[in-house]
Amino acid sequence: MAHTAELIAVGTELLLGNIANTDAQMVSEGLSTLGVNVYYHTVVGDNPERLKEAIEIARKRADVIITTGGLGPTCDDLTKQTLAEVFGKKLVLHEPTAERIKAYFTKRLPGAKFTENNLQQAMLPEDCEILQNDWGTAPGVAFEADGVHVIMLPGPPGECTPMFHHRAVPYLQKLSDGMIVSRSLRIFGSGESAVEALLRDRMNELQNPTLAPYAKVGEVELRITAKADTEEEARRLIAPVEDEVRGILGDIVYGADVKSLEAAVLPLLEEKGLTLGTAESCTGGLIAKRMTDLPGSSKVFAGGVVSYTNAVKQSLLGVPEAVLKEKGAVSEEVARAMAEGARKALGCDLAVSSTGVAGPGPDGDGNPEGLVYLALATADGTFVRKVAQGQGRDRIRTTAAHHAFDMVRRYLTGLPVEKI
Amino acid sequence: MAHTAELIAVGTELLLGNIANTDAQMVSEGLSTLGVNVYYHTVVGDNPERLKEAIEIARKRADVIITTGGLGPTCDDLTKQTLAEVFGKKLVLHEPTAERIKAYFTKRLPGAKFTENNLQQAMLPEDCEILQNDWGTAPGVAFEADGVHVIMLPGPPGECTPMFHHRAVPYLQKLSDGMIVSRSLRIFGSGESAVEALLRDRMNELQNPTLAPYAKVGEVELRITAKADTEEEARRLIAPVEDEVRGILGDIVYGADVKSLEAAVLPLLEEKGLTLGTAESCTGGLIAKRMTDLPGSSKVFAGGVVSYTNAVKQSLLGVPEAVLKEKGAVSEEVARAMAEGARKALGCDLAVSSTGVAGPGPDGDGNPEGLVYLALATADGTFVRKVAQGQGRDRIRTTAAHHAFDMVRRYLTGLPVEKI
Repeated sequence: MAHTAELIAVGTELLLGNIANTDAQMVSEGLSTLGVNVYYHTVVGDNPERLKEAIEIARKRADVIITTGGLGPTCDDLTKQTLAEVFGKKLVLHEPTAERIKAYFTKRLPGAKFTENNLQQAMLPEDCEILQNDWGTAPGVAFEADGVHVIMLPGPPGECTPMFHHRAVPYLQKLSDGMIVSRSLRIFGSGESAVEALLRDRMNELQNPTLAPYAKVGEVELRITAKADTEEEARRLIAPVEDEVRGILGDIVYGADVKSLEAAVLPLLEEKGLTLGTAESCTGGLIAKRMTDLPGSSKVFAGGVVSYTNAVKQSLLGVPEAVLKEKGAVSEEVARAMAEGARKALGCDLAVSSTGVAGPGPDGDGNPEGLVYLALATADGTFVRKVAQGQGRDRIRTTAAHHAFDMVRRYLTGLPVEKI
Repeated sequence: MAHTAELIAVGTELLLGNIANTDAQMVSEGLSTLGVNVYYHTVVGDNPERLKEAIEIARKRADVIITTGGLGPTCDDLTKQTLAEVFGKKLVLHEPTAERIKAYFTKRLPGAKFTENNLQQAMLPEDCEILQNDWGTAPGVAFEADGVHVIMLPGPPGECTPMFHHRAVPYLQKLSDGMIVSRSLRIFGSGESAVEALLRDRMNELQNPTLAPYAKVGEVELRITAKADTEEEARRLIAPVEDEVRGILGDIVYGADVKSLEAAVLPLLEEKGLTLGTAESCTGGLIAKRMTDLPGSSKVFAGGVVSYTNAVKQSLLGVPEAVLKEKGAVSEEVARAMAEGARKALGCDLAVSSTGVAGPGPDGDGNPEGLVYLALATADGTFVRKVAQGQGRDRIRTTAAHHAFDMVRRYLTGLPVEKI
């Protein structure tokens, strides 16, 4: 697809800085996967004149315009009217949509008051394709006019994201002469530039599928994207490249089409029927929080101890006072004793621990900001990993939690746990 | 200030969807506080032709252009060159900046290799004001040409945010014929529309200062913004309005110019010399994680227990088996026993607990998604709050943690703890 898209987000709340334009990121990422070029994003307020101006500029430099926002029932919501006007289309009442909106209100929002305003959402441009909204009330709209494809999506991210993936993407696929399919490999244990260095030649050589790395906080995503007549064929093109990449990168690839290390760890624990517990000092609950962010985590997560003080390390985790005194709280020995103590106290099969310096600045014992020890206690013994990096409190804590989950993953898949 | 600003973010990574344009949100929020109108945001890639086009459009509709990104040392970084060209200014080597960059490398990045490329960051438009960057290497730049003020800021949020507040804001203040000062009241326990309803008349009447509410997840921010010749005078205008608003809203105002409930709680604990602990079920470590997000939390935070299973509720927190069986894990009685057990086990002065249904869906006992009990155990007895709301796992957990901190805040300030 050699299409060029421009995104126009409509909403005064974006211009006031109340929210960030995360819809643009989500749509851009999806378009990049589809091979659609994006040269500009524009954000404009709930103002028909300025929206009109933005559309006039966009239609000159793109053949796909995707708008987000301004489809709701209030008089601020002017996207449909304005786009219909610019492209010379009338708005007509779409009866099935009107019925759907009434039914949605009755079923999903029993307390909410249905007003005639809500029917404005059923006024749609003539000869358009309706993008049914199963995640809210305002339907999306797509039409072609003057060689430009216009796709309008609702603004709230909880509606915009599924509407893009389930409605806009199939529409865009139809514009293409083939299917574009993407597979995302997740990598922990190497930076983006190191991954790029290992794969540079292949990244340059490969045309279909293509290979592109993306940096995330403390990890890397590698996307393999293929184009073919059918999805099956595209997947056949991807498979050998995935095998080749996995061969080059080895066990730092922790999953494919998975969202995070903890999301990779959860099914591994389930498969083996094992439970996990945590003993956290510098991460202060972050490891437990990330595990329990996942629906279904209660099947494998026993619980955890946040032992921010030495007293709690002793009382709840049984870390010997002598070890704390001799080695200091930030030490391999304390990490080990914390994990082993948590495994006993929580009655779980595996326990991970963290102790380190999140900063800002070194700790009282002179340990530098960013020094973290992690341990994993198991039936086969305890493993320890030492990590040293200094890039601010949030990043230090996030990366330490990554390491904890990586140790669990490596243990459960029979890989070396201590070093990466 | 009747200025109109347009934001132009420069960076292909934004168009590929690798990152969201959070700089635009931060700058927009700041400009809104300053009373500067923002009608458009534009995002453009690392492409000089398209950047030029975006600038040509912006200069026709705004008298302040703020760019973010594209000031770095690589050949992709073209913002300065392009803006200088559009506004007919030469680039000249700025010696003090070159010296600063060299010194920064020697001191802060001893491992990094200094290349002549880095000196490109010291090539600045003639007759410009240099916005010194104390948070990175690339300096910002401001100049006026053809009646347009141009301000260029670095893209990484860790540099862009302080550069905006400490460099761009003072520059913009100078353009104004007075000082604009803003004070932010944080509110928990009432929605945006309820706050608006209470203050609607005053919001409409007030001209200087102005009063505007902003919705956050589970809470509300209310900004009072005044304009005057001096900062002192602006603050004198704000003070009576703050008093009036506090009088109307009462104790749901939890702080002024504070970032979060936990950030309001931390100094209260410090003042009273009290320590806090947690016992978390449905929040799964989030309360502890939020407390330990704050530098300095180790002075007041003892630790916590994440008791995701009934077994851990019994073994580490001493919740009686009979209570769990009779009342169920999601109950007032269990919340109470968890908090009291944590207070003993952690040896802390105050302990907060959470037990509830984060979802998706109801729990095994038929408790609905969103039902959460919170308890606070203190030397004066234990307080319990029941919360019921159903808006998805993340929001349920975030709001439950808000409630936990709100209970601590209310206890420490002598307010009723159980109801709000």
